[in-house]
Amino acid sequence: MEREKRYEDRNVSIGPFVLESGEELPSVELAYERVGPTEAPVILVCHALTGNQYTVGESEPGWWKGLIGHGKYVDTSEFQVITFNVLGGCNGSTGPLSINPETGHAYQSDFPFVTVRDIVHSQNKALQELGIHHLHAVIGGSLGGMQVLEWGILYPDWMDHLVPLAVTPSLSAYGIAYNSISRFAITKDPAWKDGYYNPDHPPTAGLATARMVGMISYRTDDMFQKKFGRNGNRRSDESHTEASYDVESYLHYQGNKLTHRFDANSYLYLLKAMDMHDIGRGRGDIASAAKQIQSNVLAISFKGDLIYPPRDLDSMFTLESLAKFYIVDTKFGHDGFLVEFDKWGPLIKEQLKETLKI
Amino acid sequence: MEREKRYEDRNVSIGPFVLESGEELPSVELAYERVGPTEAPVILVCHALTGNQYTVGESEPGWWKGLIGHGKYVDTSEFQVITFNVLGGCNGSTGPLSINPETGHAYQSDFPFVTVRDIVHSQNKALQELGIHHLHAVIGGSLGGMQVLEWGILYPDWMDHLVPLAVTPSLSAYGIAYNSISRFAITKDPAWKDGYYNPDHPPTAGLATARMVGMISYRTDDMFQKKFGRNGNRRSDESHTEASYDVESYLHYQGNKLTHRFDANSYLYLLKAMDMHDIGRGRGDIASAAKQIQSNVLAISFKGDLIYPPRDLDSMFTLESLAKFYIVDTKFGHDGFLVEFDKWGPLIKEQLKETLKI
Repeated sequence: MEREKRYEDRNVSIGPFVLESGEELPSVELAYERVGPTEAPVILVCHALTGNQYTVGESEPGWWKGLIGHGKYVDTSEFQVITFNVLGGCNGSTGPLSINPETGHAYQSDFPFVTVRDIVHSQNKALQELGIHHLHAVIGGSLGGMQVLEWGILYPDWMDHLVPLAVTPSLSAYGIAYNSISRFAITKDPAWKDGYYNPDHPPTAGLATARMVGMISYRTDDMFQKKFGRNGNRRSDESHTEASYDVESYLHYQGNKLTHRFDANSYLYLLKAMDMHDIGRGRGDIASAAKQIQSNVLAISFKGDLIYPPRDLDSMFTLESLAKFYIVDTKFGHDGFLVEFDKWGPLIKEQLKETLKI
Repeated sequence: MEREKRYEDRNVSIGPFVLESGEELPSVELAYERVGPTEAPVILVCHALTGNQYTVGESEPGWWKGLIGHGKYVDTSEFQVITFNVLGGCNGSTGPLSINPETGHAYQSDFPFVTVRDIVHSQNKALQELGIHHLHAVIGGSLGGMQVLEWGILYPDWMDHLVPLAVTPSLSAYGIAYNSISRFAITKDPAWKDGYYNPDHPPTAGLATARMVGMISYRTDDMFQKKFGRNGNRRSDESHTEASYDVESYLHYQGNKLTHRFDANSYLYLLKAMDMHDIGRGRGDIASAAKQIQSNVLAISFKGDLIYPPRDLDSMFTLESLAKFYIVDTKFGHDGFLVEFDKWGPLIKEQLKETLKI
């Protein structure tokens, strides 16, 4: 049978949706990308904080194109890969930018708080809408990794493989600390206006600050030193507002860049979802929660990951005989899951093959 | 001879002062604390970013009271200890809050940029004003440690001992990155007004953000986890502006607290002085600069120091036979130099004794 190839960039509606908090969204839709042959086994990819559904991409390369595609480690000749923009996101899925049917205006700060579990439940409903009732694998890093872990616990018989990357079973105090500063910077920006900002005048300074706080946590000091050193120092540039060093220019650039593609409220809602991430919440503890996982697990951590240290992910699976755990040796730290695919892509490729044999 | 004991909390004027940049401040004074017997050997202490001259303290305990005092590791029965508020600071020394004699108003953003070398030169002049021409030791951590290193290079025959703590020979790209975010947050606060803010309406949100950025770099993730964990999580507190977690409350508290005792412009000038810290600047390289040091050196780093990793300080002294280097085993990281005095205070005590024998 020749398999039909496909690239879909669509939205799927799941209707009214009740959140973990008990609040109901009257109408939810999720934007998604779907790549690969019809009827091939489905792999669900979950994206990180500032990611989106364009994992592979079409006109422009997707954010995980180094891992996923025709002939890649996750081969879209063999698998179909679906990625949803998260609930609460700002790339087409229902979130703070969406119109609240009750008011006719964008939700903004009236959007309810969502959790990683809500994100996972919404994806499950969306998959069923698409006629999908089983997944070959669920893969994702960082906030995406949080979704992977929750997928394995909330829908343990839905998948053959879980591949969480660069994540921990709960967000640590240190992780919450970084998020707190980002949240503080956005909400203290007078342009935020309690979240009801003019779309033409969003809190760009606050969001840029938040992005910069993120950037320093994503890579190691070694990497910063190798890439920038103390380059760019010029006495003539003594200023509190101009960048004097290359690393400063880089952070300003990254901060500013995000403000052109991301909604500040969406950022706040997703920060809160991350803060609330704790697979043990309401389930006794992390160990009890982890025991509910029935699928194979390939867990991958990255050396030097400041917020998601390898030891924390490893400890979750100590008693879980089906789990494999790898630490990738890298200078990148957390961002390791977005680069150096040759270091860890083969692990995923092997893992995905294994179950096909069963 | 019975030595007269003394506690001084005064200012010393050093008159006009030419900075490294070539700019001249028409009139500089430094506020200082001086504790210990008259005519006893003098130990100069250099303070960190948000520190001040109150090392020992009188009515209130000083920030290094655990290390310095009667019968302490640095014994004020045996030594007199002098600490200056840094040039550019906001605790009595000439800085952005001082009146510019040319305008009759506070300098604010008209204050010239100062370097760690300027800070050291100003201290040297002030000591001479006080009739002091030799130091038994120069001790300090973080920004204080930068001053210690520069003291050893700029005035190599002035002291018997240098004790730099929690510092590196130059600020790394990673260190500049953290400072950049703090600077960005302050200068993007609309209340900053290019530095010419109303003293009654300073950029508190920006300064608080900056302080929070500092706090996450001063202690290790382990320490944050042990102290706060995920405590304080309450679903009912879902909010973007209220603290939901104890670690968030702590950061808010620390951020707010600093705004009541520190000037935002002063913070900016000292951040820039730190960014420019590089003992190799204008001296070939770090190794050439380090060779100019003639005194004994006791260098102390702290395990897990995020911005000032032990390896960087150690490497500076590899070829320096007079230097001793210790890494303190701690969970605190950078803040190690402000706590657990029993772990490393004895090293300093021994070091200070040694020269007395010579």
